[in-house]
Amino acid sequence: MSAALGTTAIEADRRAGSDAAATPGTPARDTAADPIRVAIVGATGYVGAELVRLLSRHPSVRIVGLVGRDRNDEPIETFHPQLVGTGLTVGSAIPAEAETVFLALPHGAAAQQVPALVEHGISIIDMGPDFRLHDPADYPTWYGFEHPRPDLLEHAVYGLPELHRAELEALVDAEVAIVGSPGCYPTATILALAPLARAGLIGDLVVDAKSGVSGAGRESKPDLMFGEVNESVKAYGLGGHRHVAEIEQELATVAAQQGLDPDANPGAIAVDFLPHLIPMTRGILSTNHVRPTRPVTQRELDSLYASAYADEPFVTVVAAPPATKHVTGSNEVRIHVRYDERIERVIVIGVEDNLVKGAAGQAVQSFNLVHGLPETAGLQQLPLAP
Amino acid sequence: MSAALGTTAIEADRRAGSDAAATPGTPARDTAADPIRVAIVGATGYVGAELVRLLSRHPSVRIVGLVGRDRNDEPIETFHPQLVGTGLTVGSAIPAEAETVFLALPHGAAAQQVPALVEHGISIIDMGPDFRLHDPADYPTWYGFEHPRPDLLEHAVYGLPELHRAELEALVDAEVAIVGSPGCYPTATILALAPLARAGLIGDLVVDAKSGVSGAGRESKPDLMFGEVNESVKAYGLGGHRHVAEIEQELATVAAQQGLDPDANPGAIAVDFLPHLIPMTRGILSTNHVRPTRPVTQRELDSLYASAYADEPFVTVVAAPPATKHVTGSNEVRIHVRYDERIERVIVIGVEDNLVKGAAGQAVQSFNLVHGLPETAGLQQLPLAP
Amino acid sequence: MSAALGTTAIEADRRAGSDAAATPGTPARDTAADPIRVAIVGATGYVGAELVRLLSRHPSVRIVGLVGRDRNDEPIETFHPQLVGTGLTVGSAIPAEAETVFLALPHGAAAQQVPALVEHGISIIDMGPDFRLHDPADYPTWYGFEHPRPDLLEHAVYGLPELHRAELEALVDAEVAIVGSPGCYPTATILALAPLARAGLIGDLVVDAKSGVSGAGRESKPDLMFGEVNESVKAYGLGGHRHVAEIEQELATVAAQQGLDPDANPGAIAVDFLPHLIPMTRGILSTNHVRPTRPVTQRELDSLYASAYADEPFVTVVAAPPATKHVTGSNEVRIHVRYDERIERVIVIGVEDNLVKGAAGQAVQSFNLVHGLPETAGLQQLPLAP
Amino acid sequence: MSAALGTTAIEADRRAGSDAAATPGTPARDTAADPIRVAIVGATGYVGAELVRLLSRHPSVRIVGLVGRDRNDEPIETFHPQLVGTGLTVGSAIPAEAETVFLALPHGAAAQQVPALVEHGISIIDMGPDFRLHDPADYPTWYGFEHPRPDLLEHAVYGLPELHRAELEALVDAEVAIVGSPGCYPTATILALAPLARAGLIGDLVVDAKSGVSGAGRESKPDLMFGEVNESVKAYGLGGHRHVAEIEQELATVAAQQGLDPDANPGAIAVDFLPHLIPMTRGILSTNHVRPTRPVTQRELDSLYASAYADEPFVTVVAAPPATKHVTGSNEVRIHVRYDERIERVIVIGVEDNLVKGAAGQAVQSFNLVHGLPETAGLQQLPLAP
Repeated sequence: MSAALGTTAIEADRRAGSDAAATPGTPARDTAADPIRVAIVGATGYVGAELVRLLSRHPSVRIVGLVGRDRNDEPIETFHPQLVGTGLTVGSAIPAEAETVFLALPHGAAAQQVPALVEHGISIIDMGPDFRLHDPADYPTWYGFEHPRPDLLEHAVYGLPELHRAELEALVDAEVAIVGSPGCYPTATILALAPLARAGLIGDLVVDAKSGVSGAGRESKPDLMFGEVNESVKAYGLGGHRHVAEIEQELATVAAQQGLDPDANPGAIAVDFLPHLIPMTRGILSTNHVRPTRPVTQRELDSLYASAYADEPFVTVVAAPPATKHVTGSNEVRIHVRYDERIERVIVIGVEDNLVKGAAGQAVQSFNLVHGLPETAGLQQLPLAP
Repeated sequence: MSAALGTTAIEADRRAGSDAAATPGTPARDTAADPIRVAIVGATGYVGAELVRLLSRHPSVRIVGLVGRDRNDEPIETFHPQLVGTGLTVGSAIPAEAETVFLALPHGAAAQQVPALVEHGISIIDMGPDFRLHDPADYPTWYGFEHPRPDLLEHAVYGLPELHRAELEALVDAEVAIVGSPGCYPTATILALAPLARAGLIGDLVVDAKSGVSGAGRESKPDLMFGEVNESVKAYGLGGHRHVAEIEQELATVAAQQGLDPDANPGAIAVDFLPHLIPMTRGILSTNHVRPTRPVTQRELDSLYASAYADEPFVTVVAAPPATKHVTGSNEVRIHVRYDERIERVIVIGVEDNLVKGAAGQAVQSFNLVHGLPETAGLQQLPLAP
Repeated sequence: MSAALGTTAIEADRRAGSDAAATPGTPARDTAADPIRVAIVGATGYVGAELVRLLSRHPSVRIVGLVGRDRNDEPIETFHPQLVGTGLTVGSAIPAEAETVFLALPHGAAAQQVPALVEHGISIIDMGPDFRLHDPADYPTWYGFEHPRPDLLEHAVYGLPELHRAELEALVDAEVAIVGSPGCYPTATILALAPLARAGLIGDLVVDAKSGVSGAGRESKPDLMFGEVNESVKAYGLGGHRHVAEIEQELATVAAQQGLDPDANPGAIAVDFLPHLIPMTRGILSTNHVRPTRPVTQRELDSLYASAYADEPFVTVVAAPPATKHVTGSNEVRIHVRYDERIERVIVIGVEDNLVKGAAGQAVQSFNLVHGLPETAGLQQLPLAP
Repeated sequence: MSAALGTTAIEADRRAGSDAAATPGTPARDTAADPIRVAIVGATGYVGAELVRLLSRHPSVRIVGLVGRDRNDEPIETFHPQLVGTGLTVGSAIPAEAETVFLALPHGAAAQQVPALVEHGISIIDMGPDFRLHDPADYPTWYGFEHPRPDLLEHAVYGLPELHRAELEALVDAEVAIVGSPGCYPTATILALAPLARAGLIGDLVVDAKSGVSGAGRESKPDLMFGEVNESVKAYGLGGHRHVAEIEQELATVAAQQGLDPDANPGAIAVDFLPHLIPMTRGILSTNHVRPTRPVTQRELDSLYASAYADEPFVTVVAAPPATKHVTGSNEVRIHVRYDERIERVIVIGVEDNLVKGAAGQAVQSFNLVHGLPETAGLQQLPLAP
């Protein structure tokens, strides 16, 4: 039985496949010998390629299918010449044997496809926004569509392991396993701000962010041509970028977890978030200008950030302002916090590779947790610099 | 008589030269036939080259000398291959016939040289900070040196024609003519904010700025190597960039001119100014996040900016967020103002070519005013894009 | 009478306009007071913008029309934000008053439009290939179309002033004035090789060329996205790039003019020309590896190039290998010639700004000659570096 | 005993260390449990960082020392911020326990240090030129120094595994194990040409190469500043780049192995090799223009290259011209061969990441062979694109 799911079909009912696969991550499974079978939907874009780069070297994973709109088993090098050696092809249906599906699709598309996948018992790592926001009302407001399955939003976990590790791990045994994996701007920004939010320190907030062009995806747009981008910088998304919704949601969640006074609650703040397009391909830098709710010291900030991230495998707190190049190709977020006494502000800077920790790497990190694998499996590449 | 002035000598007492030159800008002078004789000190750097580019095509100017530290009449192409056609050389002394000297020197150096030049009756366009700040106390605070001639600071005009045109024009007949020509960050930022400051609208202010590498000058520094800069972005100058002093001074001046309540006065604000290094050569983008002191509307802002800049030859208010590339090579500042109702902030973006309106072009603009020439003389190049 | 000409109409019969205009360049005409009226067809592309940049500051020119396919008097900043200050608009018809039309169109399009323009007495500067090749048979071979008006090819002059100045000047009084203005690769390559070709010195030839992306035009193509171009280089056009035809034609012409033995004639050589796409926007570098027909010396080469180009306003022979950045924004070609004794080869390197000397600037240079204006009029900008 | 060796000391006589280590690669050794102990001399440069990136994830290696001139156990992030997570430090001496030393030093320096290392029984992977050339006379000619130990040159193997695999493997049991690991230009060029050389097909040869700036190392030089490099391209090394010596040596070796007629022997050719500096950080593209010694066909070429490289793990022959970006961060060389009938030339293009297959990756590949490890160990990263 092949079910049409939006643009993507599942080749046959995967429940007819290996039963063992039905409970991924059970302790008994030796994933080296019997790797988890994954498919990637949206494999022709930049995030799709990055997933292939990571997952084809993941010790516990076998890629069983790459899916692209209207593709007919075309060699992957047609879309991604760098991946010529992998022998993979891009087709139009998810193979029945897939246990987990990674979705790299435009907003609205995953919401169409996920219900049928869930019904087939497939776990979902969605890298679009369709399962990131808890409040269904946010979808018409920020994305212009009514969410078709608000009931599933309740099952979805916001896939930022540093904030939601336990919830992700709990999906190991869940009947419905959906991860709404956050994207580039929210990841760098939320991780940069979470320690302050937890401490109730965010009084006023300006987030001024800078991104390379790959964050805009692979489509050929006039604004993303080399001739327009190189030797230039500009702001965009004035008047409210969609990622604001997630940033506000997560800062509010963090603050609420601490039982903070709603008025000192950063979720109460309408976040001033302004992104800029930088003449580079990879990388996000989020500059957070925070007016603290009370006087602080550098020492207090250092201690706050050290204790928040000391045990995190993918967050590094550094003593000098980081450059995006310091994390290229790796799953690391690097954070620098500085108190400027003269202006009475805390400056927090976060950098990441938008295609790794800001997309594919983060998805793999959540995938690892959902399947009971070591969190760092397949993600230990060091940054590529210069 | 040749007087040693710091590293720069004046070849002979210029008062022995043409008397006509002693009163530049007198109506009788036909500068096409008898062009103003200028010298450029600091000609081996990027700003020096840009001055040569502009002044060697200026209809009322003759370059009579280029000066570099310890240079011995070396062809300009040794330092600036692109200028091979000009036939100019770089020597170590200012020719006696010079009427105006442009100084492109590190901070502290101009303050040493200017007194002797003034004594020789030479008018000065200084592109460093030594004559930009009115309060002598600012020099030890921000630049780490005691100003050797605080008395001259009183004569110096802050060379931002859009704010100080009348003062610059008044130098035509002044005995001492010193222009402290502002640099890249202050120009873009102050012009972006001046209409708001004048209206007393700046309640809270975050200035997040982005610059290409040429703003850091031409010295070979590890941080400015291509391998470090390309595909990367980083913040720098945390804890207080020197340009803050000028920005605060000028915003305060603007507000004071309007007799504003000191508490609503942006000069009372310690400006949160944070610059970033972008992988590009030319261009500054200043993003100003302003919390207004009272509710405003987009219409009010549009009117405020239109009336402020309608008659300015080098300021354009545009309806869409500008890119730095839109002004490359030209003396234009482009400004976009947007009210974001959701966050109750005014976002003002200013872009410029840091070597033109942010340095050499602005210097020529002031020079034109000081000499009674048309303000746009020699500055009418359209931007070079893509 | 409005005649539909391919996509472009002429608003009315221009012969109904000023009679004076019918004979452009007659000594009596004071072009400062009565500037030559030009239109630009293909104004929405990169070359179109560059023509506007140059021609709107040209002392003897007035732009009377910009034409783009299906455009309805749209402000030029819609297409070229940098030109917002010019007040120009882009429409769909050539104004009747136009005396000269610059065409920046894909191959095949100009051949359709030129006949009617010629009939209206309009002089033509075509920046596409449709009037560059003398042999009609070259069009089907290299461009895939039969030339609709081979008779007009006989009237067309190859617009490389350094080789065809007299022919261009002769168009002042011609009834039919068509200039086939050469593009980026041929200009740099032919000028680099002409002195050797004239001396019968080209024995074997490899032309390895490097271009920035703007040479590929402004269309949004996947290969020209920033994410694909930056941090990468590749060859393209293997198997025979179209520009080979022009290069072979002109080298043969140069050699024939010298009455050279056809076997020593570089036109007899099938030119190995291979272009590469470089991660930059502007600039062409042509590296010419020449096996000379007989032993030469560096001194002989220096003398050959010095005498060839000493009086040329836009060709500079330099002693060190030039970078493309040395000529950005200017109409200059810079050439370096070196004899390598060990390998018995002459290496000749030519650089230019592909949008200026390789397109718009060269067109203006020919225009000046065709109209009896000073050859350098409107083209004296110094290069913009860094 | 600590021996001073040029700038580098060895902490103590390593023969006093583990005996097991004295015969690296003996079958009995379980390198997972007892990894090979390596040191990297020249760890503060780009190649040093790349070695750390690769070797710190190599399953059979433990980095026991990083050495930099006059360094005093400084944290690696001082030099390479991206490597902050490794916990490594840079000191001034090679630890006694090191079994293999990787040298990334300027020419002439390794020749000074290697003799003492050899005496200590340490195997050497030298990434400089000091042990690449077989003929001692080549050193004064191309590098300006007399080789201090020509006797050791006889023991050194040219570390291009695709051509010298058996010789490298034979070093497992050799008393003196020195690998002269080739650099960026020779690797891409020799691998592109070897199949033609073996077939005696290279009649005439022009090698036109393009490199990113990282090939020039990390030193701060004016020519490598972002402001000079971006938006520019230039040739350099005219008159004979040093890498010519290796290219000629290896092409001659390949041809000699086939017993080719010396006159058809490409080693008889003085190679015309001309490199260009491209505005990118990583990547080499070598364009080889070959006039074949006899008529060939595309089919013959395809077969020649397929059979040469079908079993090579790091060489891919591709059907379309490759871009350098297709191999960034990986140890792959990608080659495209095309016969152009019109010009009777074979065009062969080779691309690689100059810091991986052109330096550190290649060194690790040879290291693997020398130690009897799987050739691909630690080198299976897929390319990072975009």
